[in-house]
Amino acid sequence: MLKKLRTAVWKANIQLPRHGLVTYTWGNVSGFDRERGLMVIKPSGVPYNKLTADDMVVVDLDGNRVSGELNPSSDTLTHLELYRRFPHVGGIVHTHSHWATIFAQAGRAIPVYGTTHADYFFGDIPCTREMAYDEIAADYELNTGRVIAELFEANDLDPAEMPGALVKNHGPFTWGTTPVDALHTAVVLEKVAMMAYHTELLGCTEPMSVSLLDKHFLRKHGSGAYYGQLDRLDEQD
Amino acid sequence: MLKKLRTAVWKANIQLPRHGLVTYTWGNVSGFDRERGLMVIKPSGVPYNKLTADDMVVVDLDGNRVSGELNPSSDTLTHLELYRRFPHVGGIVHTHSHWATIFAQAGRAIPVYGTTHADYFFGDIPCTREMAYDEIAADYELNTGRVIAELFEANDLDPAEMPGALVKNHGPFTWGTTPVDALHTAVVLEKVAMMAYHTELLGCTEPMSVSLLDKHFLRKHGSGAYYGQLDRLDEQD
Amino acid sequence: MLKKLRTAVWKANIQLPRHGLVTYTWGNVSGFDRERGLMVIKPSGVPYNKLTADDMVVVDLDGNRVSGELNPSSDTLTHLELYRRFPHVGGIVHTHSHWATIFAQAGRAIPVYGTTHADYFFGDIPCTREMAYDEIAADYELNTGRVIAELFEANDLDPAEMPGALVKNHGPFTWGTTPVDALHTAVVLEKVAMMAYHTELLGCTEPMSVSLLDKHFLRKHGSGAYYGQLDRLDEQD
Amino acid sequence: MLKKLRTAVWKANIQLPRHGLVTYTWGNVSGFDRERGLMVIKPSGVPYNKLTADDMVVVDLDGNRVSGELNPSSDTLTHLELYRRFPHVGGIVHTHSHWATIFAQAGRAIPVYGTTHADYFFGDIPCTREMAYDEIAADYELNTGRVIAELFEANDLDPAEMPGALVKNHGPFTWGTTPVDALHTAVVLEKVAMMAYHTELLGCTEPMSVSLLDKHFLRKHGSGAYYGQLDRLDEQD
Repeated sequence: MLKKLRTAVWKANIQLPRHGLVTYTWGNVSGFDRERGLMVIKPSGVPYNKLTADDMVVVDLDGNRVSGELNPSSDTLTHLELYRRFPHVGGIVHTHSHWATIFAQAGRAIPVYGTTHADYFFGDIPCTREMAYDEIAADYELNTGRVIAELFEANDLDPAEMPGALVKNHGPFTWGTTPVDALHTAVVLEKVAMMAYHTELLGCTEPMSVSLLDKHFLRKHGSGAYYGQLDRLDEQD
Repeated sequence: MLKKLRTAVWKANIQLPRHGLVTYTWGNVSGFDRERGLMVIKPSGVPYNKLTADDMVVVDLDGNRVSGELNPSSDTLTHLELYRRFPHVGGIVHTHSHWATIFAQAGRAIPVYGTTHADYFFGDIPCTREMAYDEIAADYELNTGRVIAELFEANDLDPAEMPGALVKNHGPFTWGTTPVDALHTAVVLEKVAMMAYHTELLGCTEPMSVSLLDKHFLRKHGSGAYYGQLDRLDEQD
Repeated sequence: MLKKLRTAVWKANIQLPRHGLVTYTWGNVSGFDRERGLMVIKPSGVPYNKLTADDMVVVDLDGNRVSGELNPSSDTLTHLELYRRFPHVGGIVHTHSHWATIFAQAGRAIPVYGTTHADYFFGDIPCTREMAYDEIAADYELNTGRVIAELFEANDLDPAEMPGALVKNHGPFTWGTTPVDALHTAVVLEKVAMMAYHTELLGCTEPMSVSLLDKHFLRKHGSGAYYGQLDRLDEQD
Repeated sequence: MLKKLRTAVWKANIQLPRHGLVTYTWGNVSGFDRERGLMVIKPSGVPYNKLTADDMVVVDLDGNRVSGELNPSSDTLTHLELYRRFPHVGGIVHTHSHWATIFAQAGRAIPVYGTTHADYFFGDIPCTREMAYDEIAADYELNTGRVIAELFEANDLDPAEMPGALVKNHGPFTWGTTPVDALHTAVVLEKVAMMAYHTELLGCTEPMSVSLLDKHFLRKHGSGAYYGQLDRLDEQD
């Protein structure tokens, strides 16, 4: 069932430790088959080096396990809420990667200080508000997805132009059209967070100019893009 | 003698450099057989890559060598005091891992800034008081264990909910039901310390909400836990 | 065509990830055949582990592709401008390496705090001014090269004595007589930036003495040099 | 000639990059045969992965090459001065390792904040004064050794209890009874510097107690030592 998507999700999951984004089992990748309304996600608490494509768990949009023998990631309901609210997303990554998590712990958005950031994120990478007692006490994982979606609606952010967010006191979520795309963004987010952190400690808190942000984001994304080998398959992995 | 525990202690010791927790011989793991009242611990000053399971030293609760040809770790009496005072502990790890040691050198507890911390430690990770001249001059290693135990009693901390502490100007000790469990916590402590450090330098010194701390600790620990594959062996290594 | 230079450029490009200077495809090396007026450069957006010497793109001084099937790096026009303006340069490297980029994001030159810096750069490593709206909107990559050249002219800097610069909010460019020479300088710049950053955060913002700067730069460069094995091929790689 | 010492010096030199202490050729190890008054040292500017034991250069106490085809390290006269002034030293290491160099660039001694430091250095690790114009202009490398020796004399420091120093704006020198001993200390110094740096940035500038310093240094060094396997060969490598 969903063999191709399971393989893609598995491959993206085992890349997490190779990119230094996770310790132990602290991260998960999912993929979504929008046509069938089914999500494939990492099982909870299983080490990456023991995962197989067959271990991936398939759940429906309500979180019911449709296939697989293991319990899905404890973050399953967060992923599902994002697939419901962000119509074009096909892959999601959640990690506790160091530098992105540091901004999340501080409850801070990551300002745009450079073109590395602007090449991938069209503005500050936002951070959710603090969750209320009752949002935590019941349906916590679902509500985590809700505060991310609320953040994007309240600030009129487009998930295609801002492919990630920080959950306050928790860590980053990133997304894309596929699991590997979301993984790519998770790697970039970590680098961008590391450099933003140190830029601020060097005494600079002035974001880069809007013209430069526009230039860098739009030369890689959208109809006017001219970066890379556009007539070839994307070979980035 | 205690072949199984010796092997477990040896395996945990040689994991220390693989997790980047030690330089040279600066760290040790022990395990405790509570029934027989015997502790297995790394010998002092022997490099990890030359250790064998047979090199592990067995000592009784008074620190007398019962088996093994080498001298036990110089921290032996600290480990023993912790096994005496913390009834459910079966494994202890001591390292000079960078970020945990930095908090220890500053004489600071590590505040709870995020869910990574809350998943493993149910509150601030405490730091011992400064030891007095006579506590250092005589029975120093024993007294090191005593100030840790004193810290837990004075603050009514449960070693099962707070599986580690910092010794002022020295470094971290962590523990668990087994040596590998204590090792796991030592790895987590180092990550948590690294992120707490940078969270503070980013200007945030406000701990996360108690509701979120409760949620994260209790969904992984105790009777209401729902994280991982609870019906399977713990595969984390 | 230009087989030897293509090989040199390819070899220097695949060294970028080995030195930890790049993530994904964020960096490029070029080489220049000054006699023929042709530049060899990495193709845009192709991962380093899939590059071959044959993938290298040859362009003329106006940026027209003369040989190769792929699109040249999106930074092609920046490289060309530097070859036009800096007469003795034969190789250029551009990366988003962390610490150099952090100074670039802060819009800061890197002051001379130590002999590691002075061994390679004869003074502060300069940072370009902010680019104006119209410099970004049209001919952005060409104008990036222009602001670097302008910086050197305005401050009377010699590209042979100052083999690199930071582009504000972007990242470092380094150069040398060959591609591997420029790569060497890119590696050094990253180390120098890392150490300068932390020197400042330790509270020191006083540059080293001019006598010591002169001594270290001049014992390795110019007619009075006495470092290394001057009568042998440079074996540094 | 001096085959055993050449091999020891070569082995220690090629360990420098393995411990992450050097970039390119920025570091050197020497060994001294006090009986014959001859020093063996790394040749200047040759990469570590191309070094052989035969490449090591032998010089007399005046710096004249006695054996070997390559030029000795440019730091040769500094090493020789230290062997002349510090009677029991048999091995010296010089690097530009990051954290030790950061303190050197700031012109700062490294205060004793923890037991890791106290296990190896009996007090603050000192930093030399700024060198005067004429000390730099002529006999610079010799004078570098002189300011280190002057620092030890002026502060009544014993090179056996303080096996290293920082040269202002330059980097660390460490020493010991053998080349591998000096290498060991170079590794430790880098860790100690890294942790001292971050301890200060966390807001702590209060050194640890003298009693704890005494305890840790003296349980590993001198007649009352009880750390390690004293009746066995030192297996640390």
